[in-house]
Amino acid sequence: MSNRVGICGLGTVGSGLFNLFATNLAEIARKTEQVPRLVQVGCRRDHPDCDLSSVAVTRDIFDVARNPDVDILVELIGGTDTARELVLEALANGKHVVTANKALIALHGDELFRVAEQQGLAIRYEAAIAGGIPIVKAIREGLAGNRIDWIAGIINGTSNFILSQMSEPGSNLAFADVLREAQDLGYAEADPTFDVEGIDAAHKLTILASIGLGVPLQFESMYTEGIAGITAADIRFAAELGYTIKHLGIARRSGDAVELRVHPTFVARDQMLAQVNGVMNAVMVGSDAAGQTMYYGAGAGAGPTASAVMADILDICRTDTSVPNAGYVDIRSADVLPISGIRSSYYLRLEVVDKPGVMADVSSILGNHEVSIEALIQKDSRRSDAQIVIITDEVRESAMNECIAELEASAEVLNPVTRIRVASF
Amino acid sequence: MSNRVGICGLGTVGSGLFNLFATNLAEIARKTEQVPRLVQVGCRRDHPDCDLSSVAVTRDIFDVARNPDVDILVELIGGTDTARELVLEALANGKHVVTANKALIALHGDELFRVAEQQGLAIRYEAAIAGGIPIVKAIREGLAGNRIDWIAGIINGTSNFILSQMSEPGSNLAFADVLREAQDLGYAEADPTFDVEGIDAAHKLTILASIGLGVPLQFESMYTEGIAGITAADIRFAAELGYTIKHLGIARRSGDAVELRVHPTFVARDQMLAQVNGVMNAVMVGSDAAGQTMYYGAGAGAGPTASAVMADILDICRTDTSVPNAGYVDIRSADVLPISGIRSSYYLRLEVVDKPGVMADVSSILGNHEVSIEALIQKDSRRSDAQIVIITDEVRESAMNECIAELEASAEVLNPVTRIRVASF
Repeated sequence: MSNRVGICGLGTVGSGLFNLFATNLAEIARKTEQVPRLVQVGCRRDHPDCDLSSVAVTRDIFDVARNPDVDILVELIGGTDTARELVLEALANGKHVVTANKALIALHGDELFRVAEQQGLAIRYEAAIAGGIPIVKAIREGLAGNRIDWIAGIINGTSNFILSQMSEPGSNLAFADVLREAQDLGYAEADPTFDVEGIDAAHKLTILASIGLGVPLQFESMYTEGIAGITAADIRFAAELGYTIKHLGIARRSGDAVELRVHPTFVARDQMLAQVNGVMNAVMVGSDAAGQTMYYGAGAGAGPTASAVMADILDICRTDTSVPNAGYVDIRSADVLPISGIRSSYYLRLEVVDKPGVMADVSSILGNHEVSIEALIQKDSRRSDAQIVIITDEVRESAMNECIAELEASAEVLNPVTRIRVASF
Repeated sequence: MSNRVGICGLGTVGSGLFNLFATNLAEIARKTEQVPRLVQVGCRRDHPDCDLSSVAVTRDIFDVARNPDVDILVELIGGTDTARELVLEALANGKHVVTANKALIALHGDELFRVAEQQGLAIRYEAAIAGGIPIVKAIREGLAGNRIDWIAGIINGTSNFILSQMSEPGSNLAFADVLREAQDLGYAEADPTFDVEGIDAAHKLTILASIGLGVPLQFESMYTEGIAGITAADIRFAAELGYTIKHLGIARRSGDAVELRVHPTFVARDQMLAQVNGVMNAVMVGSDAAGQTMYYGAGAGAGPTASAVMADILDICRTDTSVPNAGYVDIRSADVLPISGIRSSYYLRLEVVDKPGVMADVSSILGNHEVSIEALIQKDSRRSDAQIVIITDEVRESAMNECIAELEASAEVLNPVTRIRVASF
């Protein structure tokens, strides 16, 4: 029985897992005969929340990877270089691996899965995506009988918190102000780039796309756009038009190709994803038999992430290592559609000079590019400039790019056009 | 390898599963080396949607239970008596069982699990609850590291469809009218008792409570109340107070006891469950490590149910039979709190005579029973009678019963008091 666990890293998640062993082992023993045993912790320093007196502690995490008494190494150190070496060392020593490290899997998963496969070992990473939500299990096992057509997820809590705060009725807050609030609350890092630029979400979507659509892990092919450009005006117009702006990761089959994109998105207010607020995450999956299913919960935090790590450990203890690490045994390359090749509806916001005939000129430019209008708002702003806001019908993005270029070249359009894609599900 | 499948029953779900084998086996083969093979179908008559020419067909479903070439029997005949015999026969012949039959598991699960346990066989029933949503897997595996505190689910699509239609802005429709519409659309049976009286939901909650809280299957202890008593007035007042009425199944730990109850419930409009409309299902789970997670999708239909059945089949093919059939290896009895013992907030609607002093008398009766008021609406109805609508703070239901009895005994209260429980999560 493979049930002896070694934890590497005792930060937020590591301490959460350590304490879950302390509090919930009796409850777990009611559910399975294959109860895990925590035998070693590798950490550079102790954690104030953890009493390490009854467990072997090493300051060298590689000790855990070499410890013959450890069957399952849990990698919670973060980063990619040392983490990759650690996991390779653990695999070389015949240990199963559980990790919460999305960057590691997104960037080095192919290599790690290959090595694990040769050894008949499991690499599990439920905690890498959407924290406490068992989304990897849902996709790889719960929906295994389906052909998954698309996945759309709110998979970065920081971005969702910021957009939610900006969308509070009457808030009218700017991105920068809410970001500062998020930092004060500990929901955003001092350097928020990874979260607000969409990189963290892109790591997670890379993994979701691979396990859901059976394509290779290809972070480098992802189109990634963050939320820093969203203004209070966009939030207001979205509400007026019946939408909410969400930062979504979208993976979608498009003929034989796939779309891999992370960007702010208009989501109709009556959609379930539009209701996901604050730091919560949710992933919607569209598949041929089950239809639309959604999975909602906390995307981060010690408890939720430890819950996901523990689920992986328990699966391995039950010797349930027969799910392929990559989700598919037969991963097939598929062309990734460049962002200019997708079809979408768009929200456009134009600041224009306030004089007669502007609307006709804008409409005519749209018409020239066969962009048809689904909804339109025209408003005078506080300055004497006017704003025109448009929701278009579906059109190829390359056509939209040309249309926007012509709009921006017009003397009547005063600033770069704001463009946000509209969700189609 | 246990991968030879026999299907018993070729109704809606059976035909859906048969066609899923036809359409998705190539996709499934990309995900697992343990591809299932459909070897026999037992059905009283053919199904117009299924081409049975390439599979062995028997008109006696018990042939499937005795067929030495079948490893996994899929019970999709419905009902409980013959289904129970069929499953017992299959187990006696060493076959794993997959079923979509909630009544069978809720009423006979203990016996079936015991027999299966002795033989080392799996009984899987993902499709029995919430159709295409992998909720059994989420609870038993995804959240296995947690102590689950409560489960609250919209688990009957018919009831949810009816309440959703009644709640459409401006609808003002009566229950009976919407029921007829649901019957015309095929969302409700000709005899809708099972759905609208809450029995179907109670079967499902019986199973959810057992696998989530580790208590025995005990359908007979369930408090069950349907939606037939909900009026357009209640729907309107709910909206005015910021709530939506949903029919919920709730299982909750309460000290060492558990609450098992199915009834209409006021859910605050900003809760995720309040957003689940039409025939869709959703289950919210509150647990100690992961916090609140929710699972949403289609609760019925050929495709979604077949998706869940196929997931169970694939788990068994991968020899993942190590999850205990009952969810827990150590099921422990717990007292079921009688409904009079729960604590809840309440919505009360009183029709009263329209004269001065009534409000004071009503308030004083509430005060006598230590029921405090959180929100109140007083309105004149079209007739000269007035209505008083109250949301109370949390109070024990036995106290509320006494309070209501005294209100109804008052000459100023004209009709039985309407009482609907308010969700506390």
